[in-house]
Amino acid sequence: MDERALKEVVREIIGTEQTLDDCAVFSFGGMFLVATTDMLHETTDFPGGMTDWQVGWMSVAVTLSDIAAMGAQPVIVLLAIGLDNGDRLREILCGANACCDSFGAELSGGDLDAHQELTIVSSGIGIVEEGAVIRRRGAVPGDLICITGPLGRAQAALEGYSQYTQNLLEPIPRVAEGKRLATARVSSMMDISDGLVLSLYDLLDANPYGYSIDSFLIPILEGIPPEKSREYALFGGGDFELLFTCSQNYFPVPSVDSFIVGEVIPEHEVLVDGIVAPCRGYLHRWK
Amino acid sequence: MDERALKEVVREIIGTEQTLDDCAVFSFGGMFLVATTDMLHETTDFPGGMTDWQVGWMSVAVTLSDIAAMGAQPVIVLLAIGLDNGDRLREILCGANACCDSFGAELSGGDLDAHQELTIVSSGIGIVEEGAVIRRRGAVPGDLICITGPLGRAQAALEGYSQYTQNLLEPIPRVAEGKRLATARVSSMMDISDGLVLSLYDLLDANPYGYSIDSFLIPILEGIPPEKSREYALFGGGDFELLFTCSQNYFPVPSVDSFIVGEVIPEHEVLVDGIVAPCRGYLHRWK
Repeated sequence: MDERALKEVVREIIGTEQTLDDCAVFSFGGMFLVATTDMLHETTDFPGGMTDWQVGWMSVAVTLSDIAAMGAQPVIVLLAIGLDNGDRLREILCGANACCDSFGAELSGGDLDAHQELTIVSSGIGIVEEGAVIRRRGAVPGDLICITGPLGRAQAALEGYSQYTQNLLEPIPRVAEGKRLATARVSSMMDISDGLVLSLYDLLDANPYGYSIDSFLIPILEGIPPEKSREYALFGGGDFELLFTCSQNYFPVPSVDSFIVGEVIPEHEVLVDGIVAPCRGYLHRWK
Repeated sequence: MDERALKEVVREIIGTEQTLDDCAVFSFGGMFLVATTDMLHETTDFPGGMTDWQVGWMSVAVTLSDIAAMGAQPVIVLLAIGLDNGDRLREILCGANACCDSFGAELSGGDLDAHQELTIVSSGIGIVEEGAVIRRRGAVPGDLICITGPLGRAQAALEGYSQYTQNLLEPIPRVAEGKRLATARVSSMMDISDGLVLSLYDLLDANPYGYSIDSFLIPILEGIPPEKSREYALFGGGDFELLFTCSQNYFPVPSVDSFIVGEVIPEHEVLVDGIVAPCRGYLHRWK
């Protein structure tokens, strides 16, 4: 059973609407609150060689990235930490706190537990004006498909290109970009984490239309053969850029670096260079 | 290093104020939002013989209990589930959803991951009027120390008294009671989970005053020798009752079953039957 098969069980029990976006959304006090939770653990999420400070930073970054993907400002983060060794706590918290500080959120508490394998769950709450929240649903055919930066750097680091190590170990959630894109009324948005193609399939899941990208529009990473660079971007894990769709009339969005990689199409499918793309990427697997 | 030693590290980095209550609190839209997160996992938190439905129920109940302890109404719950086996997901979610439904909250999403040991982190958000939030701080000498129900049933079940199995496996968070107590302006509150004595030490930690209880005021559980019953109540784990302090003028609180067990005292100490109590209870331990 893979992640997406399990999602079907989730949908049956809590409802499909609850699973379509990066965050849960609820209306409160004239605003929208968005809330999200992410589980990370040593063997599958923290690359070898990562410091505990980086473990803390990344644990918060994944949550802030989900909040950014809704166009929201992160407000508070809570961490539940299952520690294999109490001596690790200080550096993990320092890294987590630094990430919160960098993006205007507050590390407001959490829970501590003992665990055989270091396991961290970060949960966060963000705020966005009711009209400004951006969801995965909302694109229409003809909208541009865009990304906020080059993709594949984290995967490249995993493959040994050490010049991209910092992209892998200290990812930058696109909080400012998410808010600007929301204000600019992009039509849909999500954060990329398991590769561009799988993210497009996630968008497909929430929409009646489809997505056609041109792999030659994806920026090539310096120092990496173009074929590999494209492969990492399409199917690699660890990127924290935002993927959004936008009417041609509103592009480019002021003060947001972004690259057009394709176009929303009427057909319900994901095309790369005109061919239906395999639905694969960085997937967790259960026995 | 035990949980409380680690707490000192947390306080140094994120601040003491953030660690004093059952939930993080922030003001928003004329109300207070409270937020909490709790990590549970198979080997230490889910008693043998528990069904997956009960695992899901309990995972939500711990979070609702924290929200209840602030006097708040739970609104949404998110679950991050590290599954050892995908086949368990359905029943876990059904139990979690049932617990949310029972107390007016919505199971709004979460995260799935693969994990060697089943690990569940539930996070929740509640709402309470600004004036009504109840914290661990606030009691004054002379206030009554009260509990919302008999204690020690979960521990009794762990010790083999099977008539209390349901108390252990399907705990009831005191959501309605928490809200009524908040409206009645009790002076401080928390939820009990690691024994009455350890909870009193948690209150001590947040207050300049102390707590003196009379163990003979603790209700004795039916079918259990009084000495054992008191021991389970004082030092056992798994109870979900609320512990609160209240001016004598406001007691009893309408529509809330409660038992007086002692009194707030000027001295900064925890006394049981006039003797300083050992600071022990159900504690997780790290190597």
